[in-house]
Amino acid sequence: MTRWEPDARRRLQEAALDLFTTHGYAETTATAIAARAGLTERTFFRHFPDKRDVLFGADTRLRDTLTEAVTAAPAGSPPHAALAAGLTALAELLQPLRDTQLRRAAIIATHPDLRERELAKLTTWAAALTAALTARGLPVAQAETAAEVAATVFRVAFTRWTDPGESRTLPTLIHHTLTEAAAATMPA
Amino acid sequence: MTRWEPDARRRLQEAALDLFTTHGYAETTATAIAARAGLTERTFFRHFPDKRDVLFGADTRLRDTLTEAVTAAPAGSPPHAALAAGLTALAELLQPLRDTQLRRAAIIATHPDLRERELAKLTTWAAALTAALTARGLPVAQAETAAEVAATVFRVAFTRWTDPGESRTLPTLIHHTLTEAAAATMPA
Repeated sequence: MTRWEPDARRRLQEAALDLFTTHGYAETTATAIAARAGLTERTFFRHFPDKRDVLFGADTRLRDTLTEAVTAAPAGSPPHAALAAGLTALAELLQPLRDTQLRRAAIIATHPDLRERELAKLTTWAAALTAALTARGLPVAQAETAAEVAATVFRVAFTRWTDPGESRTLPTLIHHTLTEAAAATMPA
Repeated sequence: MTRWEPDARRRLQEAALDLFTTHGYAETTATAIAARAGLTERTFFRHFPDKRDVLFGADTRLRDTLTEAVTAAPAGSPPHAALAAGLTALAELLQPLRDTQLRRAAIIATHPDLRERELAKLTTWAAALTAALTARGLPVAQAETAAEVAATVFRVAFTRWTDPGESRTLPTLIHHTLTEAAAATMPA
């Protein structure tokens, strides 16, 4: 009995966030997530390889937003302007999702596997950014360093944004963090 | 039969590098490391809590070299100059140890536990750097970003330095990487 469930993916993601928050990540099974979403286990596994991946399902879209904005920056733009455009596009995509992102960050903080996966995500983003920057003509060593620094700036700004007491938007925090990073490395 | 072994620590570190390289990290026991160093298991555990820590025994000294150079930078120096001084002092300490560091890096790359511990080390360094920078009067948000960027610059430069085909020194690579990081974040 395979039915087409148009918003199955979103429903599974919401059900997973609810259950991970209420019962804990380790205690929640894929079966329980499917049940809460009113879907079958089979539908779950058609969308996600395992329960961990439910939390990382938006990764590809986020990474593409980042790299496409870097690629789309005007041809003559210096690397820092292209990177700022990429990070800002990513921040603008994430900003309306703050509530979900706060819950997601709280879950990720509870489990070493998830923290490791989150760091691996940044490594993947840095590799994609390196490719986007070399495609703009930047030498590979410069592109690599720029991408690693951009990933660090994103991580610092994102961590601040997911502090429940923080009221600034993610685009604003990205801007501040980039300025702070520039002050930390400015050539003498 | 507890004897004072003046260079036990160094002998255990060398024996561990030899055995980890030859037989693999997972297959090497603390007992085997002690035996190869001509010491007892008891002596091993007086110096290190477990075999993993043999690879990270120099951490405190490296971190202190970094933060002490940041603290010692002239009072009026901007943060980027203090950070560059810290990273350069660390790089100069490591440069003569290149052969050992290459072997160590090759071992760390083989095992997820070791890679995780290596990343945790950088987190500790960033926290110590943040403290050293706030003690110089830098606001905490700026200090945090600066410390995270410095840790990233170190990681990138160190990875290049431990590539067997790389001939530049670590201080030179740190200098290049800081320049690249500045170009990636320079305010528009």
